[in-house]
Amino acid sequence: MAVLCKPVISVPDNVITCEQTLELARRLHKDHPQLGLTLRLIENTGVQKRHLIQPIEEVLKHPGFDVRSQIYEAESKARVPAVVRKALDQAELEPEDIDIIVYVSCTGFMMPSLTAWLINKMGFRHDTRQLPIAQLGCAAGGAAINRAHDFCTAYPESNALIVACEFCSLCYQPTDLSVGTLLSNGLFGDGIAAAVVRGSGGTGMRLERNASYLIPNTEEWISYAVRQTGFHFQLDKRVPGTMEPLAPVLRQVAEDHAWNAAKLDYYIIHAGGPRILDDLCRFLGVPPESFRFSRATLTEYGNIASAVVLDALYRMFEEGSALDGHRGLLAGFGPGITAEMVLGTWVTNGLDSTMTPQHSYGEYDVIT
Amino acid sequence: MAVLCKPVISVPDNVITCEQTLELARRLHKDHPQLGLTLRLIENTGVQKRHLIQPIEEVLKHPGFDVRSQIYEAESKARVPAVVRKALDQAELEPEDIDIIVYVSCTGFMMPSLTAWLINKMGFRHDTRQLPIAQLGCAAGGAAINRAHDFCTAYPESNALIVACEFCSLCYQPTDLSVGTLLSNGLFGDGIAAAVVRGSGGTGMRLERNASYLIPNTEEWISYAVRQTGFHFQLDKRVPGTMEPLAPVLRQVAEDHAWNAAKLDYYIIHAGGPRILDDLCRFLGVPPESFRFSRATLTEYGNIASAVVLDALYRMFEEGSALDGHRGLLAGFGPGITAEMVLGTWVTNGLDSTMTPQHSYGEYDVIT
Repeated sequence: MAVLCKPVISVPDNVITCEQTLELARRLHKDHPQLGLTLRLIENTGVQKRHLIQPIEEVLKHPGFDVRSQIYEAESKARVPAVVRKALDQAELEPEDIDIIVYVSCTGFMMPSLTAWLINKMGFRHDTRQLPIAQLGCAAGGAAINRAHDFCTAYPESNALIVACEFCSLCYQPTDLSVGTLLSNGLFGDGIAAAVVRGSGGTGMRLERNASYLIPNTEEWISYAVRQTGFHFQLDKRVPGTMEPLAPVLRQVAEDHAWNAAKLDYYIIHAGGPRILDDLCRFLGVPPESFRFSRATLTEYGNIASAVVLDALYRMFEEGSALDGHRGLLAGFGPGITAEMVLGTWVTNGLDSTMTPQHSYGEYDVIT
Repeated sequence: MAVLCKPVISVPDNVITCEQTLELARRLHKDHPQLGLTLRLIENTGVQKRHLIQPIEEVLKHPGFDVRSQIYEAESKARVPAVVRKALDQAELEPEDIDIIVYVSCTGFMMPSLTAWLINKMGFRHDTRQLPIAQLGCAAGGAAINRAHDFCTAYPESNALIVACEFCSLCYQPTDLSVGTLLSNGLFGDGIAAAVVRGSGGTGMRLERNASYLIPNTEEWISYAVRQTGFHFQLDKRVPGTMEPLAPVLRQVAEDHAWNAAKLDYYIIHAGGPRILDDLCRFLGVPPESFRFSRATLTEYGNIASAVVLDALYRMFEEGSALDGHRGLLAGFGPGITAEMVLGTWVTNGLDSTMTPQHSYGEYDVIT
């Protein structure tokens, strides 16, 4: 069975605090008719600070899409290899053990994607499959895990490397002044995450059932306008309300696996914003504490797009609270509006010591 | 076993002939120091005509990346559904039978990709997996087939829809004047292809073994510069020589399957250009006639990027020459430089009537 091992996260050194963001919004948009609303929305995100690949003064300049594309390539080449190397170490694997690289990133565009360069640079086998995904936005972290899970299901002894590289600050568009955009300017941060899905062995989340769901007729709610100035993020104000239709879907996915979505041992949820987390807690009927890993990501890094779920999972590893046999749910949300969900049981070294008595033969314990 | 069913191809009505292309090159680049070489290279492609989503006068105007992005979206929405509907018909399936949509396109960018719109528009299930791939270029046709194959291997009763939508004319860049670019301007065409991979049943190529290969240290040979004017295609003059290192890889993939790459019954090869086909024929030691489907695609449509292999396969279906038990190879090539390869046996209604005696128990035929 495929096991999602401990992720590695890297955020850049440049920091912008919530106070600095608010101050900047007041200065740049002092005549904006909805400045007050914007400031309240930014404060309500609960984001305390974000990390950026460039100082904020540079981000604000927007040097044009040509230069931004060059920065995207240079920064990803400078930052990704070390994160990948550590993710391999966490999984106790070498580059030559990897059969597929799933590389997700929606904040810059390269063809070929960084996968080709990584294979050449880091000693991956030249027959490694490359699966670059650029168009699933924040849902791509969950999608990467799910496609890696599928691959390891098809080829049980294989291993997958997942990389999420998001430089959201390279999508800052100074001329976009809708409230949704101004809120996004105060919400998104930069970050890189990587993790290995091992086909056998490994400590972490044993991936058992994945699912995808598209909320009907919402494809325009989160989107890019692709323009000469780059990617323009467009956020509909109905997006924060999407947990109401998604909660029953998550419940059904758990039920299909004979699990109860309200009674899981852990939750790794995309921290798109505070209301996403608040609403989903409420609709699923779980205590707010259950989403503490996602809240910590949001507070410390902002929304780092496809890397959020990997960072939240990293925090759970660090807390050390997950025990063999614990059952959990990981879910990413993004444009479409798409949810990518997966259910998994915690295992150590690929073995779930508690599974046999608890889940498979539980009712015969007394008899046998 | 997964069966790749008959593809459907659609090319736009606007046609530009080889003569018109040469005339245009003479007129636009009359002072270019390498005009003579360029004209010879274009003539040597063997492309007789290409189909374009807009009249050539419109293509040449380059209205800016904003407008091109809008055209890309509008044209794909106008043209893709009918192709998808026919591909479902060929496979005798309905939208609700599809479990994953693999959508490949490198000549425009949308987020969300067209998958979300297609699901809403055409009645696909809302739990259909979406796998949009934008960064594998011409190799993406092969990659789409291979990832669909993997998915159907992981979930044997599932069905995958593959869509390749390429409007290469939207990447025409009037200010790029290298010989590689001028040649590309005379080589690439527009086209849409779709096909279904059925998890069970189906007539076509039963997918048996797929593989990927990245030629070492060639990631800069085929690439995009991503600029405010859109995607700028950059072609290194060493690309046509890549069949020499790839032929041994194709031979090895066949050998791993106990097949001989020189003795297959059919070949569906990416028609990147004439030398790709000539060289691969020679290095594999197969007669030029074996690549007739790829040559026909190149002659009639030009290089339609990720859609080429699906069009070549369509032509083989139309010829009606494939018989149950025939063994073949399909290979796409693109940026990386990446080859996506798959071996398959021809089957009718999911059944290969000749397989049992020929391949599994052949040596016992006389005895039993």
